[in-house]
Amino acid sequence: MSAITRTGSGEQPGRIMAGEMAEQPAVLRRILDQGAPAIRRTAERIAARNPRFVLLTARGTSDNAALYAKYLLEVLLGKPCGLTSMSTTTAYGAEPDLTDVLVITVSQSGGSPDLVASTRAARAAGAITLAVTNNPDSPLAAVSEHHIDVLAGPEKALPATKTYTAELLALYLFVEGMRGGDGSAAQALPDRAQEILDRRAEVRQLASRYRFAERMVLTSRGYGYPTAKEAALKLMETSYIPALSYSGADLLHGPLAMVDNISPVIAIVPGGRGGRALRPVLDRLRGRGADLVVIGPREEVDQASAGFALPTEGVAEEVQPILEILPLQLLAYEVTIARGQDPDAPRALAKVTETH
Amino acid sequence: MSAITRTGSGEQPGRIMAGEMAEQPAVLRRILDQGAPAIRRTAERIAARNPRFVLLTARGTSDNAALYAKYLLEVLLGKPCGLTSMSTTTAYGAEPDLTDVLVITVSQSGGSPDLVASTRAARAAGAITLAVTNNPDSPLAAVSEHHIDVLAGPEKALPATKTYTAELLALYLFVEGMRGGDGSAAQALPDRAQEILDRRAEVRQLASRYRFAERMVLTSRGYGYPTAKEAALKLMETSYIPALSYSGADLLHGPLAMVDNISPVIAIVPGGRGGRALRPVLDRLRGRGADLVVIGPREEVDQASAGFALPTEGVAEEVQPILEILPLQLLAYEVTIARGQDPDAPRALAKVTETH
Repeated sequence: MSAITRTGSGEQPGRIMAGEMAEQPAVLRRILDQGAPAIRRTAERIAARNPRFVLLTARGTSDNAALYAKYLLEVLLGKPCGLTSMSTTTAYGAEPDLTDVLVITVSQSGGSPDLVASTRAARAAGAITLAVTNNPDSPLAAVSEHHIDVLAGPEKALPATKTYTAELLALYLFVEGMRGGDGSAAQALPDRAQEILDRRAEVRQLASRYRFAERMVLTSRGYGYPTAKEAALKLMETSYIPALSYSGADLLHGPLAMVDNISPVIAIVPGGRGGRALRPVLDRLRGRGADLVVIGPREEVDQASAGFALPTEGVAEEVQPILEILPLQLLAYEVTIARGQDPDAPRALAKVTETH
Repeated sequence: MSAITRTGSGEQPGRIMAGEMAEQPAVLRRILDQGAPAIRRTAERIAARNPRFVLLTARGTSDNAALYAKYLLEVLLGKPCGLTSMSTTTAYGAEPDLTDVLVITVSQSGGSPDLVASTRAARAAGAITLAVTNNPDSPLAAVSEHHIDVLAGPEKALPATKTYTAELLALYLFVEGMRGGDGSAAQALPDRAQEILDRRAEVRQLASRYRFAERMVLTSRGYGYPTAKEAALKLMETSYIPALSYSGADLLHGPLAMVDNISPVIAIVPGGRGGRALRPVLDRLRGRGADLVVIGPREEVDQASAGFALPTEGVAEEVQPILEILPLQLLAYEVTIARGQDPDAPRALAKVTETH
């Protein structure tokens, strides 16, 4: 890999990313205390229009938040959903009829020109448009009929962390508002998040395992699948380790050939139905002698090579992703530090990616 | 990687896969000559019911064919589409209202229990159901209201090749039938496919480049994106090289940090609007000194480190994916042979993957 890169981020490698990860309990609390009423009002106004179908548009980390929302919308609301293939509009000029369709665009900055263009086009095509961003003054917020502010405060590290968990919680509260739920399952999250972040030494221990890893595979099912994708992205953009993510079911359809005892596997095991659906995949991986690290309930961790036990007891499965990603953000950070690189200075990344 | 595995596939490594790749021109012709009328009748019956949304359900190689269909349906028909997150039904028991929704399930074998269960559930929830399989006697064909037979003949190699291109062509003809088109853009495909398959020596030359590759990145945009995903899957399940695939736009949102001169990139460049949208990404990759191999029109290949020029002249962009994948199937095969492994005997794969 490349030379050590410690330029541009101040005295201590990873200082900016570490600071933003540590803010997450406070951000979650801010959303619950200050953001929730406005999110509920927005949800009620949109629910009153009874959209039949939901399209989600995003890129990068926000795309993983959008995928989480897709599971919520399908499971909790029974709305058929799709993730937008943005080039159908921006490159091919598709003009779908979006009457009765809710188009949700998720973006930290709210500044990417292609997201603005596709949201504008969706609104012109009859869609109810909702932007979920960390910037109420952004162009994306301006072109959308509705806007939710995720209240994460300025994010300066290139690898997004606090805006990811903030997007997840805001989207959860939105879906709860759509179905008239009270979102009470989220109340315990700030304290649980703090407990996890306080266990950094445990993660550092786990990170030593991947000091020389040449690739990694991440897998999960159901609500945990967006976590697998986001963890892979985080690992790649900080440590440059090629990290492949698959739903457990897809892993059995081909890429399993690639997993052997030199391809470590990290499984995110939701406490609940997603985790139970993942069990045959875990059995198969153990049968192949895979190096299996589990992020999930204590009893699942105990059956793996190693892991990080999540405090999932009493935490509804649908909000567990807001906790699951925390040790994986820490892991990406610690692996990167262990490899002598700077998590604050990934090569090639710009904070606002201008795709057209 | 593992020891040489030459068991179980007869005298010559890759014989079965090679035979099935070679059948593709004949299969494409069979679909055009014998399959097209029935596909058109099915398309007309479904078009008469005017579905508002389309959901596509599949796994593995067929999931990449489903993604191709998503582009066709969005661009050519203007139908909002989504890819199913199957666990929302099978693990979480979601019960969406699927009135006016067309659910297309794509599966080579038509035998995977989760696909059968989710299609049955979709039909019970009011969807118009269409199965696209290579087996009209399969359980999936039986539970679906409509069925399209892709007429590829028995597929015995574990890495799917001829059923992929057969699924693409059948889905193209279906969408053409939905919009009252004549599908004439597909008539040239069997001859063009044969020309490509006859250039195996060129691909063998390209394969030597990846003899010692530890990872690969595949990228494209628009209609070519499913090709990037399918090529990555094919490379992984035959050669076990970790192959990551990204749409060009997503590549700029993070994973680009991972691309340097030791991560070779293969770009699939559609001749048309998708290829033009990919150009800024190619410029960025060239600027980083990436080892860039292009599969696409001659003029794009000439600007790359190496490549394979596709005969795209006079071939509409929306059917080019049926040609693009051919050199990449050959590449997966040749790289695997070059690495002393047997493309017919991937570790861990079963032909009918039973995910539940």
